[in-house]
Amino acid sequence: MDSNRYRVCVVGLGSMGMGAARSCIAAGLATYGIDLNPAACQALREAGAEDGGADGLAFAGDLDAVLLLVVNAAQCRDALFGPRGIAPKLRPGAGVMVSSTISAADSRALAAELQAMGLLMLDAPVSGGAAKAGAGEMTVMAAGPRAAFDRLRPVLDAVAGKVYEVGEEIGLGATVKIVHQLLAGVHIAAGAEAMALAARAGIPLDTMYEVVTHAAGNSWMFENRMKHVVDGDYTPHSAVDIFVKDLRLVTETALSLNFPLPLASTAYAMFANASNAGFGREDDAAVIKTFAGIDLPGVRRG
Amino acid sequence: MDSNRYRVCVVGLGSMGMGAARSCIAAGLATYGIDLNPAACQALREAGAEDGGADGLAFAGDLDAVLLLVVNAAQCRDALFGPRGIAPKLRPGAGVMVSSTISAADSRALAAELQAMGLLMLDAPVSGGAAKAGAGEMTVMAAGPRAAFDRLRPVLDAVAGKVYEVGEEIGLGATVKIVHQLLAGVHIAAGAEAMALAARAGIPLDTMYEVVTHAAGNSWMFENRMKHVVDGDYTPHSAVDIFVKDLRLVTETALSLNFPLPLASTAYAMFANASNAGFGREDDAAVIKTFAGIDLPGVRRG
Repeated sequence: MDSNRYRVCVVGLGSMGMGAARSCIAAGLATYGIDLNPAACQALREAGAEDGGADGLAFAGDLDAVLLLVVNAAQCRDALFGPRGIAPKLRPGAGVMVSSTISAADSRALAAELQAMGLLMLDAPVSGGAAKAGAGEMTVMAAGPRAAFDRLRPVLDAVAGKVYEVGEEIGLGATVKIVHQLLAGVHIAAGAEAMALAARAGIPLDTMYEVVTHAAGNSWMFENRMKHVVDGDYTPHSAVDIFVKDLRLVTETALSLNFPLPLASTAYAMFANASNAGFGREDDAAVIKTFAGIDLPGVRRG
Repeated sequence: MDSNRYRVCVVGLGSMGMGAARSCIAAGLATYGIDLNPAACQALREAGAEDGGADGLAFAGDLDAVLLLVVNAAQCRDALFGPRGIAPKLRPGAGVMVSSTISAADSRALAAELQAMGLLMLDAPVSGGAAKAGAGEMTVMAAGPRAAFDRLRPVLDAVAGKVYEVGEEIGLGATVKIVHQLLAGVHIAAGAEAMALAARAGIPLDTMYEVVTHAAGNSWMFENRMKHVVDGDYTPHSAVDIFVKDLRLVTETALSLNFPLPLASTAYAMFANASNAGFGREDDAAVIKTFAGIDLPGVRRG
């Protein structure tokens, strides 16, 4: 082991985590991975990682940094403080970059526990999708103490195309991500609603897609996700259930602030309904399938 | 009068109509204008128009084409068939391009009356804003018979960056525009809702704007309109009342198709509420002012 290399472990080797880990390898960092899926660990080792497995007990003591890209706050907590959690084995002063989408309250709770163990946490959610993760060009919205930014700088440099330093207060990064997800979720649901209306009105969906993507009604999500509707392909890039989770976080955040969100609350209801209808693991564009009385490309009605 | 030049009259010299008329002049068409506002007519004459005034009775008989860019269906009807309406004076075979945002039913009714007078109508709403109108680069979504496309080709070439031929059936163009406005309106309201939540959560709005405009939560409308919120500048480029009108058209279209629009209905309520609160003539970004309990740049609460 080259003792001078910066050593980072990515926890959660899904589409985002795997991309981020590959970006760390490409940047020359000594990279480790943790995931319950052996195939993902094997793939990462073949891509040049030092080690990878279901837990990090074998190498945790050597790490400079941990990057968490698991699905939710419960998984963050388990990865850090669970029975085979990594936090107690980390060296004092190691950096923990929490990039999962979680609430500001959960972010503050994790930071307090990590601080008590002498560890530095960055509240650093990401955006950009799997392609940007693999290219080392994620957008990172980060909050935390200066020392945490400094400790995690090599990881930020490896995985991020752009780092927004939102402030020093833990929780601000989480909240910025949640506000962002409000827009992302509403835009997918609005795209589905618009394409459903077009289908009902007898407008060819490929024409509608072409017009919108060349006019002021476009959104990043419309352009990306409504292509799946036009193609009738609901292979999950990001699943309906992810937005059930994220829009629930949006709604909980608004409740904690005593603030009304008329559109996001409606979009949450649309995704929850889609999940309950059995589309939870399909691509999030499948929220359009909850509109009855229309014909869609590639969709057979039961 | 050079009898070989193609002669077009633009009716409605607001920001879109004036831009389109200037594009016709720039393309070498003999251009006329009709508007109740004498200053607008004067400005168009100074820009090189042949003539302009409150009605077109003096030159209607010479025209090859009319381009309607008034605010709504009632104004279209008045401009064509009212006491000083232009339609009865037009030569048989002249083309009428209806580019106002109106319902499919109104579009079909206008086409029937024009056809009975021997005139060719194109159902051809536009998008792109005043800047694109002035540059001759509007997006046009057009439906109508082949003969109408042919007759109006010089106008389409002059004003459009892109022409989507939606079909031959009058009303399809109007419906495509209405579906587009569903997205545009929901995106403005969603942007306002997200920025309001950010303000409530203590996130600097300029930071929030920067993050969203560089991530997957972005939309054309967020990027364009939420800048006005960040700057605290509600000078109307497009007013709240325009989206009250357009989202009412969206809602009426859905009612006529017996189709639910959970998000668009909610967005309509938000714009109607903003108009009733006294913000109808402000920039449409002023829909954010209906969220109470937040501080916004440049906004003093009464």
